[in-house]
Amino acid sequence: MAYPGYPGQQPGGDPLWGYFASVGGQDGQIDPVELQQCLTSSGFSGTYQPFSLETCRVMIAMLDRDFSGKMGFNEFKELWAALNGWRTIYMQYDTDRTGFINYQELGNCVHGMGYNLNPQTLNVLMKRYNKNGQITFDDFVACAVRLRALTDAFRRRDQAQQGMCTFQYDDFLQCTLCI
Amino acid sequence: MAYPGYPGQQPGGDPLWGYFASVGGQDGQIDPVELQQCLTSSGFSGTYQPFSLETCRVMIAMLDRDFSGKMGFNEFKELWAALNGWRTIYMQYDTDRTGFINYQELGNCVHGMGYNLNPQTLNVLMKRYNKNGQITFDDFVACAVRLRALTDAFRRRDQAQQGMCTFQYDDFLQCTLCI
Repeated sequence: MAYPGYPGQQPGGDPLWGYFASVGGQDGQIDPVELQQCLTSSGFSGTYQPFSLETCRVMIAMLDRDFSGKMGFNEFKELWAALNGWRTIYMQYDTDRTGFINYQELGNCVHGMGYNLNPQTLNVLMKRYNKNGQITFDDFVACAVRLRALTDAFRRRDQAQQGMCTFQYDDFLQCTLCI
Repeated sequence: MAYPGYPGQQPGGDPLWGYFASVGGQDGQIDPVELQQCLTSSGFSGTYQPFSLETCRVMIAMLDRDFSGKMGFNEFKELWAALNGWRTIYMQYDTDRTGFINYQELGNCVHGMGYNLNPQTLNVLMKRYNKNGQITFDDFVACAVRLRALTDAFRRRDQAQQGMCTFQYDDFLQCTLCI
């Protein structure tokens, strides 16, 4: 049997394939609306609110290396692995499972994800993503996605690994507006 | 009469004050949820969909010079003026008032706003903000807000005005994650 977009591949053996194939079109790619449907129907968020369309958009942008605005099955698997890691970290701090973490817990989560950010940067994250002083799972994931994508973009340009890099204006916009 | 947060000021003479005061709390500042209520009740979007919470968040972030996550009346007036300009430009291209513009029209809008972006950057904008190949007014405004905020942040660091600048990692994140 041939799968659209995956000639010769047999992703049917992968349990994630079912979620992906249920929304993936003829081209074997999914857009943000389809990703939202896919993640909602998979029950990934559990008792938390399903992911918003905005969060699904940045998820696609994070892995969209060809700027197609869509996501193939390999990227979907990569996303799923990242989401699993972030959910584990979030649930470590949302101990009562209310779906909210505070400033201190966000700092712990970000540190647990391997980032070493200064307090001012953490403050920016908190101000950007909090609702009444708390961060929901959906917003935490949007934050984690953007933090990873921006860090990756920065690192690729900081070839000397000195924590600084120089951008041209259009390149700066391309890195930052897509996410 | 004293207005909360505006001692000695008489914003009552300003027609925008009514919208702002109806949601502004004791501190004379509004958060994204209140800004959304305020813009919706003002009827600013007309026949277009009201602004999403995400778009209201970036509106506040664009003018949030003290990183409070909120907006005072002076910033609200500044935002209103910017929104008026963007709505005029959008409606120039959305001639049938369906609330959608395409890639070509987005390019015209961005050019009309005074930006000179290369085709790849325009393509990134389009991929990030389109729904089925079209850009709604809400997404256009989110795009315009982020474009302005990122350009302002870049310019402040590009003191020689050479179209390039160097960022430290935390500074890069602070500029880009807040918006």
